Amino acid sequence: MRQAGRYLPEYRELRKILGTFLETCYNEDLVSEITLQPLRRFDLDAAIIFSDILVLHDLLGFDVQFIENEGPVLKYDFDFFSIKKDSIDFSDKNIQSIYSGIKKTRGMLDKEKALIGFVGAPWTLACYAIEKRSSKDFKKTKIFSYQKESEFQHIIDIFVYACKEHLCNQIEAGVDAIQIFDSWANVLDEEDYYRWVFLPFLEISNEIRVKYPTIPIIWFPRASFSHYGQLIQKNERGLLKNFDCLSVDYSTSLSFLKSVLPKNIVLQGNLEPISLACDDFHVIERKALKILYELKDRPRIFNLGHGMIPEAKIENIRKLIDLIRDFDLKNYDF
Amino acid sequence: MRQAGRYLPEYRELRKILGTFLETCYNEDLVSEITLQPLRRFDLDAAIIFSDILVLHDLLGFDVQFIENEGPVLKYDFDFFSIKKDSIDFSDKNIQSIYSGIKKTRGMLDKEKALIGFVGAPWTLACYAIEKRSSKDFKKTKIFSYQKESEFQHIIDIFVYACKEHLCNQIEAGVDAIQIFDSWANVLDEEDYYRWVFLPFLEISNEIRVKYPTIPIIWFPRASFSHYGQLIQKNERGLLKNFDCLSVDYSTSLSFLKSVLPKNIVLQGNLEPISLACDDFHVIERKALKILYELKDRPRIFNLGHGMIPEAKIENIRKLIDLIRDFDLKNYDF
Repeated sequence: MRQAGRYLPEYRELRKILGTFLETCYNEDLVSEITLQPLRRFDLDAAIIFSDILVLHDLLGFDVQFIENEGPVLKYDFDFFSIKKDSIDFSDKNIQSIYSGIKKTRGMLDKEKALIGFVGAPWTLACYAIEKRSSKDFKKTKIFSYQKESEFQHIIDIFVYACKEHLCNQIEAGVDAIQIFDSWANVLDEEDYYRWVFLPFLEISNEIRVKYPTIPIIWFPRASFSHYGQLIQKNERGLLKNFDCLSVDYSTSLSFLKSVLPKNIVLQGNLEPISLACDDFHVIERKALKILYELKDRPRIFNLGHGMIPEAKIENIRKLIDLIRDFDLKNYDF
Repeated sequence: MRQAGRYLPEYRELRKILGTFLETCYNEDLVSEITLQPLRRFDLDAAIIFSDILVLHDLLGFDVQFIENEGPVLKYDFDFFSIKKDSIDFSDKNIQSIYSGIKKTRGMLDKEKALIGFVGAPWTLACYAIEKRSSKDFKKTKIFSYQKESEFQHIIDIFVYACKEHLCNQIEAGVDAIQIFDSWANVLDEEDYYRWVFLPFLEISNEIRVKYPTIPIIWFPRASFSHYGQLIQKNERGLLKNFDCLSVDYSTSLSFLKSVLPKNIVLQGNLEPISLACDDFHVIERKALKILYELKDRPRIFNLGHGMIPEAKIENIRKLIDLIRDFDLKNYDF
């Protein structure tokens, strides 16, 4: 998941001596150092670039600050119509430093290992823009989308554009795959999901498919199975051509999902991340084996079902990776 | 939904002069007054008893307080094993006053209108017991369930027992249907859902079916479609016999749900409640018509997809009810 190695002691040590969180995201040496930290400890197949979905807000002129124990806070006072596509400057030195960070990291990373770039999806980005912080119910964002529909559509369009550019630039800089995180896809009804999650995803993924047909696209529409399950089943607007891998949150049943998803699509997921805080590894083992069993007959990426929590125990992660590496169906009696 | 008329000005006026929230729940005159308030204003088919899912915690000796703008807070310092079924005293005068409130309300309510009783489901009740307040991630509850499995199973069993008793007593007092709210069903993985949502629901609903075969059971397993969808599709342990109506949250696609749910089961739901805060009724109209259309060929209860929000506009609710009453497919071009 995109929190990369933020749970590691070596990252926390480093954080103490660093500037703000965004300054760290804009320092190519630190980006590559932090991105590679988990791979020095663990036998992982891929690294995900150290960054944040809110770098696009920062580029767009929202004042973004990360406040300890509180999360991101945005401060601004303008309406969304004042943001124009033409005025978004991707030659900005901060955003460019992310791309140099990617280039540097790709150069340092073992050739066998994949480097993943990412963006937050437009709906999730719009939530942060309107709530100005994280939220429990996204009431402000929803009411805004109902009352000021054209202004809301405008900010979605702006984020669609910014996501496309940011992903293309990351690919040019060297990432091997891209992931689109719609962390708040789960709070919408069917109509709003179609407009604010599905259509923007199609637009962004269409662009990547056309420009970079060999780059794998990983989609993470969080905890919204009935919506994306139905869209996948109907292959709405050729949706199945638009992603190679579905990243599945822990609250989704893999067995039910498999019944609607074609076999060639990779499933990524979906261990309950809170289990990694356990003292007893057997709980994790049981959950991991269930996932490995569910995914045994199809292309898969074992992963967490949501972000790593700070309480995750390093020893559990090590044992979990050993378990996955050693997994051999014959050894287990299901 | 179970918030009954708490958004109404007449309720808020009344609250100002009342004691604590729980004292209000334990006063039969106030219970019937508040329960009937929405029906005096609106042409509704049913009333839901004014109460709270935490009355069971109060009965069990957790110190429950409702704090303005913060929600419930529980204070206690004992382990769950110290609670025994035998020592739960349903002759307690507070819990009994809920039943007298039901009796009184049933007596005052138009015979044509249904009165609904309810409980929170054991998983949701256990979350409140362990978090001691509401939570974003239920980390404490999950870690507890992993680390202290037998103690967690014990508190689930205690709540299963308490739910059965409380529902039976409500039925004896005169409710016409019962609803089981699993508000936090959405935060579990497949294995935990099976143990903590599905099995407790089966136990409780089995008891009601045996004792009161004609009382309709409404199940609200919040935002967990892939889990309950699969269990319904497999008719796991005869699940389909155990509820008459599925109450569907707003984030579930009715069209997909219909593909797994037999036609005789009533669907209840699922308007996005935040839409009721709109200035523009057209947003609500569009969403409501979509639901009416989806449910047009099956038994249905039009309802919200989650709790009423305080910002809901009375005028919208009135127009919405008119719209539903006047609904006639022939008048609309879908």
